[in-house]
Amino acid sequence: QSSVTLYGLADVYVASRKDADTGDRTTAMSSGGVYQTRFGLKGSEDLGGGLKANFQYEHGFALENGGAGSTGFSRQSWVGLSGAFGEVRAGRAWSAFDDISGSTLAAKNSLLAPNQGTWLTTSYKDNPDNGLYYATPEFGGVSGAVSYGRENASAGAGRGSVASLNVKYGNGPVFAALGYQTEKANGDATALKYTRLSGSYDLGMAKLLASYGRVAFADASTTEWQFGADVPLGGGWLLSGGLARSKGEITGFSGDANYTGKLVNVGPEMERTGYSIAAFYSLSKRTSVYGGYRANKIKTPGAADKDGDVFALGLLHMF
Amino acid sequence: QSSVTLYGLADVYVASRKDADTGDRTTAMSSGGVYQTRFGLKGSEDLGGGLKANFQYEHGFALENGGAGSTGFSRQSWVGLSGAFGEVRAGRAWSAFDDISGSTLAAKNSLLAPNQGTWLTTSYKDNPDNGLYYATPEFGGVSGAVSYGRENASAGAGRGSVASLNVKYGNGPVFAALGYQTEKANGDATALKYTRLSGSYDLGMAKLLASYGRVAFADASTTEWQFGADVPLGGGWLLSGGLARSKGEITGFSGDANYTGKLVNVGPEMERTGYSIAAFYSLSKRTSVYGGYRANKIKTPGAADKDGDVFALGLLHMF
Amino acid sequence: QSSVTLYGLADVYVASRKDADTGDRTTAMSSGGVYQTRFGLKGSEDLGGGLKANFQYEHGFALENGGAGSTGFSRQSWVGLSGAFGEVRAGRAWSAFDDISGSTLAAKNSLLAPNQGTWLTTSYKDNPDNGLYYATPEFGGVSGAVSYGRENASAGAGRGSVASLNVKYGNGPVFAALGYQTEKANGDATALKYTRLSGSYDLGMAKLLASYGRVAFADASTTEWQFGADVPLGGGWLLSGGLARSKGEITGFSGDANYTGKLVNVGPEMERTGYSIAAFYSLSKRTSVYGGYRANKIKTPGAADKDGDVFALGLLHMF
Repeated sequence: QSSVTLYGLADVYVASRKDADTGDRTTAMSSGGVYQTRFGLKGSEDLGGGLKANFQYEHGFALENGGAGSTGFSRQSWVGLSGAFGEVRAGRAWSAFDDISGSTLAAKNSLLAPNQGTWLTTSYKDNPDNGLYYATPEFGGVSGAVSYGRENASAGAGRGSVASLNVKYGNGPVFAALGYQTEKANGDATALKYTRLSGSYDLGMAKLLASYGRVAFADASTTEWQFGADVPLGGGWLLSGGLARSKGEITGFSGDANYTGKLVNVGPEMERTGYSIAAFYSLSKRTSVYGGYRANKIKTPGAADKDGDVFALGLLHMF
Repeated sequence: QSSVTLYGLADVYVASRKDADTGDRTTAMSSGGVYQTRFGLKGSEDLGGGLKANFQYEHGFALENGGAGSTGFSRQSWVGLSGAFGEVRAGRAWSAFDDISGSTLAAKNSLLAPNQGTWLTTSYKDNPDNGLYYATPEFGGVSGAVSYGRENASAGAGRGSVASLNVKYGNGPVFAALGYQTEKANGDATALKYTRLSGSYDLGMAKLLASYGRVAFADASTTEWQFGADVPLGGGWLLSGGLARSKGEITGFSGDANYTGKLVNVGPEMERTGYSIAAFYSLSKRTSVYGGYRANKIKTPGAADKDGDVFALGLLHMF
Repeated sequence: QSSVTLYGLADVYVASRKDADTGDRTTAMSSGGVYQTRFGLKGSEDLGGGLKANFQYEHGFALENGGAGSTGFSRQSWVGLSGAFGEVRAGRAWSAFDDISGSTLAAKNSLLAPNQGTWLTTSYKDNPDNGLYYATPEFGGVSGAVSYGRENASAGAGRGSVASLNVKYGNGPVFAALGYQTEKANGDATALKYTRLSGSYDLGMAKLLASYGRVAFADASTTEWQFGADVPLGGGWLLSGGLARSKGEITGFSGDANYTGKLVNVGPEMERTGYSIAAFYSLSKRTSVYGGYRANKIKTPGAADKDGDVFALGLLHMF
């Protein structure tokens, strides 16, 4: 069957975690340590003259229980066209912001990335329903994308929306990207605004990684940093780790059911820091084992500092 | 893998609709403009002597949100045998009435077909659970099918059922089909009865299309017509459109949860009319774009007339 | 796509059943008479040196309704490694007890097996979430497996668990297996303990089958037997049937939602017996029809004896 490809991956790990809020340590199996466990269907048809029709359906689930209760092509569900003009996708596709948001995070943007448990700017809406996405072709290493998704549930001007863009540059050892995304809840005129700057420089013996994020809602905002490095050790080994920080009056989100009603929690300025170190060993191009340690600290004015950490060991297999 | 074929399609569109009841206009993305977005597995095994074992599992979903909340092989789920005797299917299969119900509707029986928003006789139960389906071989252009599905939930004679048949004739430019289906709810002795007549004649420069439907419940009934034409314009273009009407005392259905309890609404005689024009452009055998306009009018005695319409533009890709 | 195989099966039957409790007879379509209807994805990657990465995702559903409401890779969802050391699986995998539990039941351990409707020791947790499974290589016909799954929902020592092991021996006409499984509910110190002995001897003209089971909870227990034979008749026909018995104070289970809270019903000693005869006819290696009869009797002290039975006729197709 040449017109459709079945693909996916399995990612399982066992982690020992100290919960920062309760102080309790739990050891449990989970999945999606590096990438969410998934299966998908995708295809591309050559329509002539450089034009192609493309589609992708992708279901993400929890490997450790078979995805009990999860339904739908929760990760991606889109159809579109591509050609000299770039690429258009319609349906549920990754937002332009998502394209570059995690591109220079250490530890492959896994659960062992230093910003995990620290950053809030990873809580953006990553694949809005009813979306249109457009990516430009590349011009001399520069490319960009815009995307827009809008809530269908109710009519009129008050419908929620997610608008997003990115610009990126890659050339030899240099990579840099800027992303911006606004999210409006149904009937809410105030937009939640996310900004991301991602940059990396490949020295050969190590790739230096830096990421910056900002989230703002009305007068409140929180600003975040991450610095790290990927160090290839040879023989299939990669060492990666770094430091991350988050500081500001936006202290969290709740009720993030699509873009119809995320609630923004604002409070006294909170500071979160994290660091991590992870190792990845490739058994093949498609299979690897990974492990590492991450620690987090949360400082809230007028409250005791909180500490959390995680040790994890996992197996990742792509097909 | 020779024993199973993975297949599907993606159909997405943006439509601007004026709701006939509220008068509000909404622009939104949706899917399934021509065919419901789906993926499926099917296969056929040659058992020798002309006998084959066949199966098909097909999941339909909403592309614009990845099918959030939808589960199961909601469109088809059956296994069966075929041979010189015809074909038998067991499970959840399309009813015999469904086979021919939309066969001569204009605009490819899409959301832009003239009868959409006008007809009630398209609200039959199309793929009952626990079904048996038998289709005859073709004899000189004539073939037929019968199907029967029965509710399993409760024991005894009061279990709901869907019984269905079709006879069709195709020869050169002529196509004609008759369908009949009865639906009984659990514990309900009164059957809902659907009749369909479908006919078409291909003049070459255009195919003329006519469809008739009737639904009856006890003493109440509603009768429906549709006339249209498919006009191939060359270069991959097809123009199609027509007129449709519905008139009678059955004014709608509610609670159509399978065949266990559809409620029939009976009232003063209501008249609905609709017309539409649509264009389809094939980018390839598997990919096309479509667009068009449909308008509906509803006349209810003692109430103001209502008007609705829809403009739509979509992309269809099969794999 | 060499890295993933799509597979499955369809199994549909019609059965006339007399319910032992109500005495009512019902005729209905169902599925999974021999094996549960399913589809799955599996793959194996050669990592060199005899090491392999393996995964399997398998969704089971009800063919007669397309699996309405069922979600997830409910049957299997695991990834692992295999090699000279044996095989390890992580995720939702069949327990070691399950590997051998039904290995010597008559009528292919189908709904027509003599122990169906009689045995309680088939109510073990067969594929616990968050599981680890290890199978040894075979040494001179002997092999074994252990598995362990643990509830993630709550922290601490009170989390539910399923621990399981098997040892089996196969050589020429002889097969023998022992299985043992304990199940603890969340916060419950008392384990439910299952024991299984399975044995068969192939005489050529018939394979003799014997199975023993015991389930114990605190001081209560129930003991079970099954004897039967598989008789190949030539020309694709297999005849199989046998007798089964269950006797003890454990009278049933309820609330078996995973291993978080199965309730054990203990009462006056109950005795259940059953017998069955079934025939299987292979249309090909992948397709067969089956049919047969099973009868059950339940004796409860101080209550009237109850009788149930089932006639079934089905079609099984693998792909």
